[in-house]
This record gives sequence, structure tokens and C-alpha cells, in this order.
Amino acid sequence: MAAPTLDTDPWTVREPHVDPGTLAVAESLFSLSNGYLGMRGTLDEVEPCATRGTYLSGVYETHPLSYPEGGYGDPGEGQAMLTVADGTPLRLLVDGVPLDVREVRPELHERTLDLRAGTLDRRVRWTALSGTTVEVSSRRLVSLAERSVCAVRYEVRALDGPAHVVLRSELVSGAVTPTGVRNDDPRVAEVLDSAFEPLVHVRADHGGALASRTRRSGITVSAAVGHEVDGGQVHTHVDPHHVVTTVTADLGPGEGLAVVKTVGYSWSYDAGAGSVVGEASAALSSGVDRGWDGLLAGQRAVLDELWATADVEVDGDTELQQALRYAVFQLFCSAACISDAPVGAKGLTGVGYSGHTFWDVEGFVLPALTLLRPDAAARLLRWRSGTLDLARERAGTLGLDGAAFAWRTIGGRETSAYWPASTAAMHVNADIARAFWLHQNATGTDLVALGGVGVLVETARLWTSLGHEDAAGRWHLFGMTGPDEYTGVVDDNVFTNLMARRNLRWAADACRRWPERAAELGVEDAETSAWRAAADAVHVPWDGDLRVHPMNANFTAYREWRFEEERDRYPVQEHQHYATFYRRQVLKQADLVQALWWCRDDFTAEEVARDLDYYEARTVRDSSLSAAIQAVVCAQAQHPDLALRYLREAALVDLRDVTEGTAEGLHMASVAGAWLALVAGLGGLREDHEDLEIAPLLPAALTRTAWSVTWRGRLLRVETTRAGTSVTLVRGDGPVTVVADGARLSVTADAPAHVPLRAPDPLLGEPRQPAGREPRT
Amino acid sequence: MAAPTLDTDPWTVREPHVDPGTLAVAESLFSLSNGYLGMRGTLDEVEPCATRGTYLSGVYETHPLSYPEGGYGDPGEGQAMLTVADGTPLRLLVDGVPLDVREVRPELHERTLDLRAGTLDRRVRWTALSGTTVEVSSRRLVSLAERSVCAVRYEVRALDGPAHVVLRSELVSGAVTPTGVRNDDPRVAEVLDSAFEPLVHVRADHGGALASRTRRSGITVSAAVGHEVDGGQVHTHVDPHHVVTTVTADLGPGEGLAVVKTVGYSWSYDAGAGSVVGEASAALSSGVDRGWDGLLAGQRAVLDELWATADVEVDGDTELQQALRYAVFQLFCSAACISDAPVGAKGLTGVGYSGHTFWDVEGFVLPALTLLRPDAAARLLRWRSGTLDLARERAGTLGLDGAAFAWRTIGGRETSAYWPASTAAMHVNADIARAFWLHQNATGTDLVALGGVGVLVETARLWTSLGHEDAAGRWHLFGMTGPDEYTGVVDDNVFTNLMARRNLRWAADACRRWPERAAELGVEDAETSAWRAAADAVHVPWDGDLRVHPMNANFTAYREWRFEEERDRYPVQEHQHYATFYRRQVLKQADLVQALWWCRDDFTAEEVARDLDYYEARTVRDSSLSAAIQAVVCAQAQHPDLALRYLREAALVDLRDVTEGTAEGLHMASVAGAWLALVAGLGGLREDHEDLEIAPLLPAALTRTAWSVTWRGRLLRVETTRAGTSVTLVRGDGPVTVVADGARLSVTADAPAHVPLRAPDPLLGEPRQPAGREPRT
Repeated sequence: MAAPTLDTDPWTVREPHVDPGTLAVAESLFSLSNGYLGMRGTLDEVEPCATRGTYLSGVYETHPLSYPEGGYGDPGEGQAMLTVADGTPLRLLVDGVPLDVREVRPELHERTLDLRAGTLDRRVRWTALSGTTVEVSSRRLVSLAERSVCAVRYEVRALDGPAHVVLRSELVSGAVTPTGVRNDDPRVAEVLDSAFEPLVHVRADHGGALASRTRRSGITVSAAVGHEVDGGQVHTHVDPHHVVTTVTADLGPGEGLAVVKTVGYSWSYDAGAGSVVGEASAALSSGVDRGWDGLLAGQRAVLDELWATADVEVDGDTELQQALRYAVFQLFCSAACISDAPVGAKGLTGVGYSGHTFWDVEGFVLPALTLLRPDAAARLLRWRSGTLDLARERAGTLGLDGAAFAWRTIGGRETSAYWPASTAAMHVNADIARAFWLHQNATGTDLVALGGVGVLVETARLWTSLGHEDAAGRWHLFGMTGPDEYTGVVDDNVFTNLMARRNLRWAADACRRWPERAAELGVEDAETSAWRAAADAVHVPWDGDLRVHPMNANFTAYREWRFEEERDRYPVQEHQHYATFYRRQVLKQADLVQALWWCRDDFTAEEVARDLDYYEARTVRDSSLSAAIQAVVCAQAQHPDLALRYLREAALVDLRDVTEGTAEGLHMASVAGAWLALVAGLGGLREDHEDLEIAPLLPAALTRTAWSVTWRGRLLRVETTRAGTSVTLVRGDGPVTVVADGARLSVTADAPAHVPLRAPDPLLGEPRQPAGREPRT
Repeated sequence: MAAPTLDTDPWTVREPHVDPGTLAVAESLFSLSNGYLGMRGTLDEVEPCATRGTYLSGVYETHPLSYPEGGYGDPGEGQAMLTVADGTPLRLLVDGVPLDVREVRPELHERTLDLRAGTLDRRVRWTALSGTTVEVSSRRLVSLAERSVCAVRYEVRALDGPAHVVLRSELVSGAVTPTGVRNDDPRVAEVLDSAFEPLVHVRADHGGALASRTRRSGITVSAAVGHEVDGGQVHTHVDPHHVVTTVTADLGPGEGLAVVKTVGYSWSYDAGAGSVVGEASAALSSGVDRGWDGLLAGQRAVLDELWATADVEVDGDTELQQALRYAVFQLFCSAACISDAPVGAKGLTGVGYSGHTFWDVEGFVLPALTLLRPDAAARLLRWRSGTLDLARERAGTLGLDGAAFAWRTIGGRETSAYWPASTAAMHVNADIARAFWLHQNATGTDLVALGGVGVLVETARLWTSLGHEDAAGRWHLFGMTGPDEYTGVVDDNVFTNLMARRNLRWAADACRRWPERAAELGVEDAETSAWRAAADAVHVPWDGDLRVHPMNANFTAYREWRFEEERDRYPVQEHQHYATFYRRQVLKQADLVQALWWCRDDFTAEEVARDLDYYEARTVRDSSLSAAIQAVVCAQAQHPDLALRYLREAALVDLRDVTEGTAEGLHMASVAGAWLALVAGLGGLREDHEDLEIAPLLPAALTRTAWSVTWRGRLLRVETTRAGTSVTLVRGDGPVTVVADGARLSVTADAPAHVPLRAPDPLLGEPRQPAGREPRT
């Protein structure tokens, strides 16, 4: 897919000349979401269009999964995020000619996403058949203040002559668009193409409501639409799939017609259709009650607070400045109003990966949200702990104790159909445990309230039933797949082993801290002792000849990959068979290197340097998850310039469509990863010990960085220039202890802390990557 | 499935009281085949019936394979053996009542498979509505002398009163029966349910012909039927799917009506329908020309020769005697007339595994045939070498050199949809190479004529591109799956490594011996030197603490399986997930133990004893492939009584439906394995060195064994009693050197060799199996 050409601006993302050839990517980039409701940045008139989509988090349909050679425990049902009733269409006819930018060839066609206003603006100007110059201005928003409301103000104006205008505003259910499910079984398309059974259609003044229910998953969804029309004749038609409000007007020169369209949504697993329609209508009323200006003000207020607490600044790189603000904006929007639902790998911006959530969310989105928007993070964690019973069931199916969380899901049930890259990737459980642990450490939240003690205990039990001690007393995990998906079903994956160690200790610590909850979960002292003993005995492979950690047993003895020969054949998995690359020294993504970050206490500085050097030369980064991790660990190993290049890749992955996957939605892990690459990478932030730590570096290309974190209820601002780093307590009571470059500093509201800028002191030269796989951008 | 109750008789398999409740298994047991044409032992009147099926080897339809999460190189098409036009139905009405044994409750209903006559006889006697006692006698055969012909003589007789008789004889195409394909994708059933497009139907005197073509694979099949009728009125009707010949008669007391029905078959990948009909009709003519008695005589002559050259005798165990003769009979019939097609895992006796051929055929069926019917073995080998180009293509897809033969196929193309148990099981290539090598060693055949040099060279190239040397110069194969399907995607599987070593050396040896062919294949000295160097450097894991070979790197450090806890949950794969058992010490089937046999030169006697002991305790034998191997190696380790128990399991696997899989067809590998268990097990025969070797043992329960092998054109008979073993040269010129118990003996036509019976001298006590997984029967 081609990426749109965008202006570089610190506070907006603007496409000055909308190009129909880049719509697929632009629709994702201009998505609007609040975590509950999201919509792709399609043009108001619908056509031209790559993929329409209005999504409600948690609304999905199930579909059969059929296996040509199935095995015991293969999930029998998939899940797919659905396009719910779409309220974006505003079809415009001027003098009988539809506004289709491919046909009318506008002299002006621009779109602007304003990161402070929380709106998507659009302007189109063209000459109608009659010779009249016509201009359309639209402003669209998904409310950040009213969870279930989106709205658009659409204005058409005849600038210099008369124009006959028909505006047809639609709310359409059953508008089938690609679901992101790649499955040749015709039953899948059959199920998903008619996922919704229409139940109710209601006509109201200048609008109406629809309700329908998914046939298999039984989720009832309703949308209610209303219009405030300034001039013209208005007519509304309703049928089971449509609410259509048509406005007609004869405009004189200089005259305009403006419509404010508001849509309210609701959905439920169990409520009756009437009830859901009622809630959607109430949401609509609430939006209408605020009014257009009220909705705009609401956006502004929420975002003012966001930027006051989460702004990032980088001086010296305007592209990166824009990309980082865009990342913070989209990260926030992906989860701002989330409730009882997960964040998908693509948020609510597209149907990639069928809308499923993966460990990326716990690995990247949640740790970032925890430091930026702990309230949203807590809601997301509660969704995950709410799936504990399904995870227990899955563990039972696998013959294991405790809980095995879904590798990919929407509703909580495992839906992955290729076990070597899912069921075997048991690290997902420790990643989830880590998200809970980091959250309680960074916020001081009671884990019991989050359901976190159950998660830690049951995942610890899982590890105990997965691992075992050999005759020499070394504790092993065999047959696992680590984060790297090009190396599967291996023994003693270092990342997995070390994360399991942490998981076991966190669980034991949590049981000591919340003994009542532990008792409810049936944990006795003998069990926590066994967890600690296993954790202490975890085996970590080591290659004494090369003096690096093999990422799993035997890895450094694998055949090297033919990087030169294969240099034009990426991603590897689309040109090579699993059986070929699973045992070669080629990595899709950081794996051992991720352990250097997440399990930093287990590595010396020399090991970090040598391991990073080794794996950098073998990582092809076919996964968008990887760049941010590499950024963090390159900084950790004192290579700030290389870290910056990876940070740029992570931050620009969608704006430049680096991996050619943005058409299917934004890469939320990379969105969060970009922020982490700045803060945990160049900033050296670590939040896994008792005190917050930083270790700032400043690459040659930047003159200043500044960012904020919320740490145990206090808002800190960290600013780094060549002169050094200052840590300011912006909100909350001090003193706050911050460990900067190893020194304990006390920060109070009156007295920011200051440390001089440390020069990078790498133990080895800057690592090299496989030919052609250097950081992109 | 329940197994039928059978008489124990040395030369027949007789079901004295046919039980409709055991028909599914009985249909497989009473199958008739000549390797080209096969049919299940359904009742003549069709109903009651479990699975009808007439099969032609090599006739299959393709169908889509859809993957819920597909990967690069996943086969896109499956293949399924089809039921071709079925000529077995002979529907009988007596006084208007159909002969359905569930309704008429016969006083006599018996079936007998005669292993010397090559016929399936059936007798039914019951009292008709009129009170007349009626008897039906049928005799069915698939000709062993006329490849494309089957015939049945069906006689109905009114014993003690009058009877009005209608006999409706059908040839039916498009009779859809289960295909053995387990796939939920509805397109698969759609394709296979209407695989044949009818092309031609022809009426002839008392018969006719049909031709149809598979819609996707484009195979044209024709069947022509004729009837010789003794009495009654005859009428023939023909439509695109049927040739129906109806005979009506009023029988007086003591009168009978007899029909001989003959069917001729033909199929072709490329010939026109008319041509194929012509060939089928010619086949029919040939059968008719021989006449019923001629066909019977042909069976007898062919089988006389079989028993003269291949009879097996065991004194002291009548069940085993019967089972072994049955095995030799079915082994022979599976391949007697085979041409340009593989033997499926179920032969032509059922649709299990979709009719696919696997490495079992090269591993067991071919080595046995090579020693019993080298001509049939050679034809089967030529089929495999004929798939070399498809195997080269598959290797290319996998990014490998040389050729990668299909794990499961009918037409030669890979159709396996679960790569960890197929693509990763690269040992199939060495197993195929071994079948060629053993064949040339045992028969002296020119490998070039079999296409074997190409097979050896291209598989050696495959191994070179799969394996690599580590820094210490050890040659590894990583990420493979060995024979044991409960341990997948592992490093340095000993069996695979050692078989690859052999494959490399065989290839180098073949190139030295057939240099012109090697030159055509582009082999230069440097390449064969590299093969030998790799073979010499092959790494074999060793556990110095336990003093056993881990079956792959790390295996002995795997967690032990909970045999006690899981003792009622077999087969393991139906109760546990791959991710659970792939890294536990539980084996579905012999793996390292198979290497002890096939790669015997790499193990000391002590290693054989210790390794066998170790793996016996961990092998649950959920695969019917395993018992025969365990029998052989138990004998090798000097445990003849245990070997006998495994031999009994292998030999009785179908007659007793031990694994509950016989309903879908006989287990051809176990059929061959039973013979191997006797000959290579108790007989200690080894055919992989320059001279034939034997090392006979006699279990306590047997008083005598006798068996034959054809070795380099000479027929030898080996007879063992308590007094010792005699080796007799029955046919061909002597002297033949036979190494018996390590001593070189010379055998001539005049002077049989004799060695005293050696007492078993095991190094360890008899191995123990997991609870409940001792040899069955």
C-alpha cells in the first residue's frame, strides 16, 4: 500500500492533497476512536473507499475453524470483530452529480487530524457542472467525553453561483466489509457476511434507531442517529437496515447548508433489543444535549488534560516530534473509554488480525498506559482478569494446572489455529502477569481489586505444571515458543524461562501481601515455597565459547541464515517454510534482546552488550513489535544514535506505512512502543523496582527531550538537554525518590532534581544488522 | 468397533456366524485385492453394510485444503481415494422379500476366506415367507492372474419348496461412501460427493459398461460387466450411473439359479473415455474367456506359487499360524499386480487415511516384499522414483536442495496439512532411500533401472542442505520429527541423523557404482566427498549419566509422563494437546528403538539392551507401526518371549481389531510388520550387509518356525526347532553364503546348513512397559 503524503507539523496530521490511491492507509491514520467506539477515516461520501468500518470494542461474531488435520484441543471457533451500523455516510449530490473525488477532481481536498482538538477536518472545493464553485467542510469526532457518541458537522456552500444540493445521511447496518479473517472455508464468509440479524428499526424526528443481534455470539448492538439541520427540506426513511435522512436545498450564491449528525451506540451480551435501543437513544440524547459546540469543548478539555500529563517533546527532529505526539494521541484514544473489552492489536482502527488482542497489549500498550493513564490501564487489566475462568478452562484442556490465557481473542476464549506460534508461546501468561505487577508497582493499586492476585497465582500454577527439574536440579521449560516467531517449539527459551521465574516470584510476593485472597485461591505456604524454589532453579542456557546467551538451548549451534541470498525476500515467513527457518539463526523480532530489557536484573552490562551485538546481526524485524524493543536495549547498551533510529522506525511505522500493514489498522503495540522507546529507551526509565529509575541519553541528532510519567499518583516531567536532565514534580505531593544514573534523588514540588548528561559508554561498537534490515525511515 | 468372531484355522479365515454388528471390521478383513483392484468384503446384497468400496490403486480426486492460519508452503490440495463403479451388488428377492440378513434371520450364515483358493465364500440359509428353505452360495474373487478382473458366482437354491426369485445385479457408479477425509470444510464433501462426471454408458448382452471422469484430477475410469446366467429371464438396463441386469426365475423344490458376474476395469490419466471403455471391455472379455473355472484355477496357481515361496509356519500357536498366513496373503494381494501407483497405508481395503501412502510402505511393506516378491517390490519402487520431479519441486518450495518426498500422497504431491508431523519428519526420505538400497542389495537389481540412483542422490542433496556442522565439526539436523509422533520438532533425532548418514553413504556408493547415471545427475567427486564427510561427522546425542541414547537432544531431560494418571486415556493424542506431550517422555511408537534395528551397526549390544529397556518403559504404542519393530528389537536384545508377544500383537492387529482402526481398512505396515517380526525378529534376519544374516531364537511357547526368503534370485527356507536351525536352498544355484549367529555357512541345493539353537543371553532383564501398555493379545 502507498502511504499518503503528509505535512510535518507538531500538532496536526494533515494531508494537503487527498490521494485516492492512498486511501487504505489514510483511512487507518485518520481513524478516530475512544476505545469504546472507533471508526476508520473514510470519506464522508463513502466512495471512494478502501475499507469502511465502525467498530465497538468487544463486539464480535464467532465462526467455525476447520482444520485439514485437526488435533486435540484445537479451538473450534474463531472470533472476528464486526463492522457495526455505520453512521459516517453523508452522500452529497450537487446538481445531480455525486461528490466522488475521482470524478469531480477537486481543486482543493485536504484533511487534518488535530491532536489538540480531537477532530478530523476535511475541506473539498470543486467546480460543479453548472460552473458554481462548491465547498464542503466537514469536522468529525468520536467523543472522548461521551463514550458512546460520535458526531460530524457537514457543511456545503455554493461559493459563487447557485447549486441544487441533496445530502443523504445514512445509518447502515449490515454493510459488510472485509473482516480480516483469512479463511478459505466458505462457512466463515457465510457466517460473517450476515453476522447480524436485524431486530428493531425506529423512526424519529430527523433520525431513528436500529438494533440487531449477532446470530452466533448473541451480542445485541444498537445505534441511534439524529440530525440538526440548518436549512433545506428534511425527510427520514427507516427500514431494518437503514435510517436515511435526506436534506435537499437550493443554494444561492454564497449560501450554505449545514448538518450536524450525531450517533449514539450501545451493545450488550444479554440485554433485550428494546433496552439496547433505549441506551443508544439515550446516548444520542446526551450527545445532542451537549450540542456540537459542547462536544467540541469536551474533546478539547479531555485532550488538554492529556497533553498536560502526557506530552512528549523532542527538539531537533520535527518528523519524530509529530510521530510521537500522534502515537500518544492514538494510544490514549485506543483505551480512553474502554470498558469490559480488550484493545485489539489494531485498536478500533481496522480489522487486521480479526480485531484480536494479543500479548502486545499487555507487553506494550498496558505498561505505557499505566505510566500515562493509569485509570484506562486498570480497566484494561480488569478485562483480562475477567477472562480468568476461560483461561483456567484452557489450561484444563491442555492438561495443565492454573490458567493459560488466550494468545489471540476478543471474548477471552483461545481462537488461535496454529499452536506452535500460540499455545506453545506460553510466555503470554508471564507477560500478562507482568502487566499486572508493573501496574501495581507504578500506581500502588490494590491487586485484589484488579483481579490480579488470581492472575498471578493461576499463571504461577501453570508454570509449575509446565516446567520441571532435571536430575541436576535445573528447572526447565521445554517445547516453548518465545517472542520470536521464526524460532518455534524450542527448549529453555531464555526469555520465557526468565519471565516464568518472575511470574513465580510475583505470585509468591502477592500471596504474602494479600494473604486473604491467597487463601481464597487455596494457596498454602508449601505452594509459594515451591514457586520460589522453581524460580531459583530456572535454567538459563549459556554459550561459553561465544560468551553469549543462546536464546534457547542449542540456538547458537543452529545453521546461520543466508541473509545475503535472501535479502530481497522479506518477510521471511512469506518466502520460506516454518520447517526451514524454525532452526536457523534468523529472528523475526527481538527475543533474547527483549529479556535484556524486561529481565534486566539477570544480565550484566557485558552480557547485555555481547548479547545485543549477537542478536542484532540476526534479527530481520519482520514484526512491527521489534523496533521499539531494539530501541530500548540499544539505549541500554549505550548506543543512543542507533536507539534513535529504531525509535524513529517505531514511531513512523504507520505514518510512513513502514511494514505495509497500516491499511488494516494502526499497529497499537508500535504506537505504545514508540513512547516506550523514547521513555524507557533514551530516557532509561525502569519502573520494575521499588523506586523509579531513569538513565537519560541524548542522541547527537536531538537537542532536547521531555516527557511525563505518572508514578504512584504523582506527575513527573523529565527534560533532558545537553546540560543534563531535570526531573520536576508537576502534580502531587513530594518528595518522590527517583534513581537517576544510579544516584538516588529526591524530587519535591519546589525542588526539581538535576543530573548532568552522561556520555554514552558502550562496551562494544554499534551493532550491525543484516544487510537491508537496518532501522527503516 | 467390535471384531467378528472367527474360527482359528491354518488356511482359512472363517466367520461361522456372520454378525451384522461387526460388519465394519469384517468388511476390511474379507477384502479382496490384487494391488490394482480391491474391494471391501461387503455382503453381496449390499445391505446391511458399513462402508462399500471398490478401489483402483492410483485413482483419486483432489480437494481443497483450507487452513485457518495457513503458512507458506502448506499444500493447497488434498487427495482422496475414490470408490469407483461398484460391481459387487447382487440384490436378491425371494417371494418379494429382499434378502436382508437382519430381517430374514438366517439359520446359517457363514463366510470363509480361503488363503489357498484366493476366494471369499459365503453361505446363507433361511426360510422364506412361503416356508421354503432357501440357500445362497456365493464365491467372490479379485483375480490374481487377470489384473483388471473381479468375478463372483452367486447361486440361489430352493431346497424344499418353490420360490420366486429376482436377482438384480448392479454396476453402480457414483455410489458415494465415506472417503476417509476428515475435513469440516464443506467444499471437501461437495467435491468428493460428486467427484465423477459420467461420460459413457453402453449396453451389451447381459451387461454393459460405464465410464466417468474425475472433475478435478481428470482421471477416466471405466468398468464393464457381463453375466453368465444359468436359467431364468434376463433383462439389462443401462443409464449413466447404472448397468442393471435382472434375472427372474420360478424355482421348483431343489432347483437353483446361478449367475457368474464378471467385471473388468480400466483407468487412465490421459486416454479418452472411449479408449478406457475399450480397455475395460477387453478386460471383461479376458475374464470371460478364462471362464469361472479358469479364474478359479488362476487364483490357485498364483497362490500355490506364493505358498511355495513364502509360506510361514509356527508350531505351538494356532492363532499366530493363521494370522501370519493371513498377513502374507494380504501383503501379497496388496501389491501383486500393482502398477504405476502406490500401496496405501490401508492398501485397497478401506479409505482410512484417505487412501494415502506413507513411509510405512517403504519402511515395512517394501522390505518384506523385496524378500518375498521382488518383482512386485520393484514395481512399487518405480512408482516412488517416478515422483522424483514432484519431490524436487517440494524441496524447492522448502528452500532446500534435492528432493523431499511426500509424507502422504496418492499422486506423488505432498498433501499433508500438519507440518510438524510431516514436513519436519524428513526421515521419510532416508526411509525411501533405504527401501531402494535394501532392494538392490537383496535382489542384485540395477538401481538405475528402478530410478534409484536419482532417489539416492537427490535425497543426499536434501540432507546436505538440511544439516550443518557446528563449530566443533559435529553435523546436526535440527527441528526434525522422528518416527515417534509424540515428540515433534526436535534437534538431532538419533534415528533421523543415523538414517541420513546411511542415505549420504548409499548415495556416494551408488555414484561410484553407477558413474554414468551420477554424471547425468551432475554429481562430481567433490559432492560425494562432502556427503561422506557429513556422514562421518553426524552427531549422535548420548546421555553419559543414564548411559542411554536420548532419542533426540535433551530427551532424557524431558519431564516424565504420568503413565499411571493417564492410564485410561489412550491414544494420548486424543486426550492431550501436542504442546503438552511433545516434550514429555512418552512415545507413541518406536523411534530410537527403530534405529537399533535399521542402524544396528551404530550400536553395541550393551547400548541395544540399555536403550531398549529405557524406551520400552516409555512407549505406549498408540501406533500400529510399533509392535513389529519392538518385536524385532526385543529379539535382537535376546528377549524371544517378549518378542513373540509383540509379534502376536502385530499379526493379530486386524483379526482382533486391536487398535480399533480395522473398520477403515487393514494396517498394511503391520501386515508386513508381522512377517518382519517373525523373520527379522525371531529369525534375526538382516539383509543390509553383503551377506544374508540370521540369528534364530525360539520362544518357549513355540516348538518350530519356518519361513522363506528370496535372496539374490535364490529361494531359501529357514526352519528352527529346539534342535537348531536349518537353512535349505529350495530354488536357484548355490552356494549361498548365510551368516548364522555370526558364523559364515555355505548353503547348496544338496547341503542345507545347520546351526544349533542358541539360548537367549540377554544383558538385562526383560523390559517393562507402561502400565496397561504391555503387548496386547
